[in-house]
Amino acid sequence: MKRTIVAVAALAALGLHLTSCKPKDAGSAVSGDAAQKVYVTPGQHDEFYNIVSGGFNGQMSVYGLPSGRMFKIIPVFSTFPENGWGYSEETKPMLNTSHGYIPWDDLHHISLSQTKGEHDGRWAFGNANNTPRVARISLSTFRTDEIIELPNSGGNHSSPFITENTEYVVASTRFSVPPDNDGDMPISSFKKNFKGYISFISVDPQSGHMGIKFQLKMPGISFDLARAGKGKSHGWFFFSCYNTEQASTLLEVNASQKDKDFILAVNWKKAEEYLKQGKGKKVAAKYAHNLYDEKTHSATSTIINEVMTLDPKECPGLVYFMPCPKSPHGCDVDPTGEFIVGSGKLAAVIPVFSFDKIQKAIAGKTYDGEFDGIPVLKYESVLYGEVQKPGLGPLHTEFDGQGNAITSFFVSSELVKWNIKDLKVLDRVPTYYSVGHLSIPGGPTSKPHGKYVVAYNKITKDRYLPTGPELTQSAQLYDISGDKMKLLLDFPTVGEPHYAESIPASLLEKNSKKIFKIEENGHKYAAKGEKEAKVVREGNQVHVYITAIRSHFTPDNIEGVKLGDEVYFHVTNLEQDWDIPHGFAVKGSNNAEILIMPGETQTLKWVPSRVGITPIYCTDFCSALHQEMQGYVRVSAKGSNVPLTFSTGKTAAPEAEKVAKK
Amino acid sequence: MKRTIVAVAALAALGLHLTSCKPKDAGSAVSGDAAQKVYVTPGQHDEFYNIVSGGFNGQMSVYGLPSGRMFKIIPVFSTFPENGWGYSEETKPMLNTSHGYIPWDDLHHISLSQTKGEHDGRWAFGNANNTPRVARISLSTFRTDEIIELPNSGGNHSSPFITENTEYVVASTRFSVPPDNDGDMPISSFKKNFKGYISFISVDPQSGHMGIKFQLKMPGISFDLARAGKGKSHGWFFFSCYNTEQASTLLEVNASQKDKDFILAVNWKKAEEYLKQGKGKKVAAKYAHNLYDEKTHSATSTIINEVMTLDPKECPGLVYFMPCPKSPHGCDVDPTGEFIVGSGKLAAVIPVFSFDKIQKAIAGKTYDGEFDGIPVLKYESVLYGEVQKPGLGPLHTEFDGQGNAITSFFVSSELVKWNIKDLKVLDRVPTYYSVGHLSIPGGPTSKPHGKYVVAYNKITKDRYLPTGPELTQSAQLYDISGDKMKLLLDFPTVGEPHYAESIPASLLEKNSKKIFKIEENGHKYAAKGEKEAKVVREGNQVHVYITAIRSHFTPDNIEGVKLGDEVYFHVTNLEQDWDIPHGFAVKGSNNAEILIMPGETQTLKWVPSRVGITPIYCTDFCSALHQEMQGYVRVSAKGSNVPLTFSTGKTAAPEAEKVAKK
Repeated sequence: MKRTIVAVAALAALGLHLTSCKPKDAGSAVSGDAAQKVYVTPGQHDEFYNIVSGGFNGQMSVYGLPSGRMFKIIPVFSTFPENGWGYSEETKPMLNTSHGYIPWDDLHHISLSQTKGEHDGRWAFGNANNTPRVARISLSTFRTDEIIELPNSGGNHSSPFITENTEYVVASTRFSVPPDNDGDMPISSFKKNFKGYISFISVDPQSGHMGIKFQLKMPGISFDLARAGKGKSHGWFFFSCYNTEQASTLLEVNASQKDKDFILAVNWKKAEEYLKQGKGKKVAAKYAHNLYDEKTHSATSTIINEVMTLDPKECPGLVYFMPCPKSPHGCDVDPTGEFIVGSGKLAAVIPVFSFDKIQKAIAGKTYDGEFDGIPVLKYESVLYGEVQKPGLGPLHTEFDGQGNAITSFFVSSELVKWNIKDLKVLDRVPTYYSVGHLSIPGGPTSKPHGKYVVAYNKITKDRYLPTGPELTQSAQLYDISGDKMKLLLDFPTVGEPHYAESIPASLLEKNSKKIFKIEENGHKYAAKGEKEAKVVREGNQVHVYITAIRSHFTPDNIEGVKLGDEVYFHVTNLEQDWDIPHGFAVKGSNNAEILIMPGETQTLKWVPSRVGITPIYCTDFCSALHQEMQGYVRVSAKGSNVPLTFSTGKTAAPEAEKVAKK
Repeated sequence: MKRTIVAVAALAALGLHLTSCKPKDAGSAVSGDAAQKVYVTPGQHDEFYNIVSGGFNGQMSVYGLPSGRMFKIIPVFSTFPENGWGYSEETKPMLNTSHGYIPWDDLHHISLSQTKGEHDGRWAFGNANNTPRVARISLSTFRTDEIIELPNSGGNHSSPFITENTEYVVASTRFSVPPDNDGDMPISSFKKNFKGYISFISVDPQSGHMGIKFQLKMPGISFDLARAGKGKSHGWFFFSCYNTEQASTLLEVNASQKDKDFILAVNWKKAEEYLKQGKGKKVAAKYAHNLYDEKTHSATSTIINEVMTLDPKECPGLVYFMPCPKSPHGCDVDPTGEFIVGSGKLAAVIPVFSFDKIQKAIAGKTYDGEFDGIPVLKYESVLYGEVQKPGLGPLHTEFDGQGNAITSFFVSSELVKWNIKDLKVLDRVPTYYSVGHLSIPGGPTSKPHGKYVVAYNKITKDRYLPTGPELTQSAQLYDISGDKMKLLLDFPTVGEPHYAESIPASLLEKNSKKIFKIEENGHKYAAKGEKEAKVVREGNQVHVYITAIRSHFTPDNIEGVKLGDEVYFHVTNLEQDWDIPHGFAVKGSNNAEILIMPGETQTLKWVPSRVGITPIYCTDFCSALHQEMQGYVRVSAKGSNVPLTFSTGKTAAPEAEKVAKK
């Protein structure tokens, strides 16, 4: 592998290593009051919610800061047998795509909704990296309410990034691919046929409902992190770009050839004008749009068959490239909107671009040629300055609201604080090990909340008790309230803690939903009281309208089910108290359980596979007599004449009904 | 519901409530040094592993004490899209049962292996409550190595409980059902036809491999918690029993009628004698036995077709009932083996039985009649004494090794410490809220490690920042090193923290495996170096022998795959460093990802659904150029003549081979 050796030598000459270095002072320089600073007295609450993507687990998780305790895993793109997500009839449509049902994805980035550039506490958005999608999570129910698929995208890593008023959630391609409908072609035709689409997804300001407003058809390069403009730069969007070499194989070598790739600047207000002028083109596409309805407790999946596209080549002034060293990964905009920080993961400096200078360069057409027909602005004409010798392998930058930036460094495994105005390095602290993203509460907004920074690390090794070859991933909490950053806590995370946002508890806890009102339950098969409980046969489908309340099911004895039947248990939880879920499971079912929150209805499908008596029971410890919350279903042979009966509390079930309509 | 009202009234008269009370002093009486006591300085390790069942998530989780931090979720009975458990070809057989593939179960109890009554740090066992199974987890790899199904069981809550040298793992029925092969019958025939089987599973002392040695055919009642005898009572086993009313409907009322149910005493040494004498009877059955092989990195599932049974009615001296108030739930044996503590969840006292008195009562035939042909020992004849006014709703008891017991109380929501000898209550502390199980490190062994007790609570409500209707479950850590128990920490848990054991870190961390040696990889489709990478067509199956090493796949360009093909990506991770996994995913795949540990091979099956270029990539951030660790697969139409080619680093793939053997 000659090329690999050459590339490694080249990186070594740059002072870089492909893998991380262990910081020299790997001891634990923790100040004496760290224990008190992270301890939340039992019964008291944390100060911030830390909403963390799970990376390759396809989920989001909710932690408290400063304690580092995890309060919830929110299933988004991956099945979650624990509560039936992706297994219940109601949630299966949420995982539908144009490729059919998909049980997993890779959720990398979080965006919390904003109004006027500040956190508004309504929604969290997350991306599916593998099969391109964007999800919207309610910060009232902490559930996934909506998922929209992205056509023409090969990998949705660069997503979701939001504008100042959540007008758009934006997503762009990591792996360029031929557009979905272009058919069979060789990989060797990359430069000619592969494209990099950027999707602008509109968000309804009331309902939050998403729709793809338009896609930009860009050259076949890779997009990475992005941020919307703020304040003076509102109306613009900035994306890091790599693999401008347009390599299709051995990218570790072939996509690391150029000294500079690009930051892409997009004028999305101008895109809206072009759309109004009719410059958009509707093209055939196929993508799923899935919505969960809190009233019917059910999801629907709709396949959409066309998407609006804009070709920048036909829309002058829409997009510009700015050179950025080397293999840009992070692209962050400071709270004022004036400074755009590019972080090249193989770069030795951090370039800071000026929005004012970008505008001047555009007005003066200060170009350095073009790339695939798109103007490239001259590096010096848009550069505010470079942070010199910041560290090795800068990745991401957030802001403390005090005029400073903190940047994460994967290769030198550290956080570095620097002043935005004079670009001077102020402080550096080691991370254990190899930090990726970092998060300051409110760090990507116009008004950072500050106080802490969390490092989300890529390597854990010896930081915790070992658990075999597969170790936890990890985060570290630092106090940034003073001039120097101080390590407070290591806390393990589920999945890969790829990126996160933190938000003051006061913005969310007041709106957190406790129960669903039973009188508002609009589920088709709800039984809103025990009197509505029944079992109905429709051909070979048996619909069980079953209620759960401490500590029994109604009905709890069912006979007349036969081999060949499909049994649907529609379980309504009649409780109206906070934190009294019931669970439901069937022995031998090729399905998961369901957990049903107070006032909710959820459905478990069961296809019996043998003749005999099958137990059902509540899976969530609900009372002193939870263990007694059970029942039996009798399954008879196909063609048996056992009548359909159901009851609770009467062994012989004299009130049984026989319903056998088609 | 007249009967319900009557039952509730009866319980109220007993001073009991069906749901829990909030402790009166619900403030947080935490001592000043609690923060320091639970803080583990970054880089330092916790003192104990706390291995906690996940209840309805079907998993086990590993926490550290005293920090309460979670280090790993071990998938056992439930699919885990995060690392491919249940989705990779190698792990699918682990979830096979006589009912077919099952993606979920409900794991309630943990047992850590013992030698001479003490923790030996080799294995953890866990139960599947829903579809009856027992699993064995390696405490070297922290993976599930074996799962065995239990025939003739309706619900395997009462499991797994181990003997002093891990001779047996024992499991008994929660929901009595007709034996598996008895065919169709009405629920009303419960008393006649329903049985409660107890399984004795032998464990090979070297390999740990399990096999059902025999099953006891017991009357149709419900079994709950159990413990093996220790020391002087070695050779005996004690099980709590409820629903001796043999109710089949509305058990919250109908199974709470009697003032006393039973503790069952089983002389398993005598069972072995009866088996030697040929008293066992082999009966037809059908159950799965699944084994994971660490060398081939693959699992197999075998269906077994008969099981040995013993009928106590034909084996005098094998089993005895002891009356126990009321609806017994917990049954615990003190470190000496002399005292058996029965905890009736609706009882107002805690009876403590004496092993010596049990032996005398048996010798003297001091019976109080019989139940379904089995002798019932007279309560007073076997009772050592009762703990008076201990609290409401006693559930479980563990031991501190200092002569004291600590019992959990669900209804009065507290932990109560009492002296084993004089049965006097010494201390009580509230729990928040409604504790179920509790765990003292080594608490169920002959040599408790003491120091802490953890309460695993059933209700969380306001203890943490709210997360919508579905809240985390929770545990609480108390210091028990002094006379009084002191609350130190609340920590949230994943799933339902049903039961747990804690073990000193020193017993496990030294044996924790770091990598799999590549030269020992015996996987059929391993590529132990890049030279062995290849793509082979076998009919419509395409086998991709693909390697992963920082930061590329070999091959990373594949053409010649066609619609209708089944593509098997056999990914070998060539790394031999600790904590360098690689992940693997395919866009649009109706499957999860796989995570591959260093030296391991795992297989992802993909059935392409459309013509075009499909990206593949590494999902686990592995180096500064992880983002570049990707590739492309070209999918052509059925019948296309695109040849099968593969390459890395060469766009035109001149070394491509065409293999088209049948």
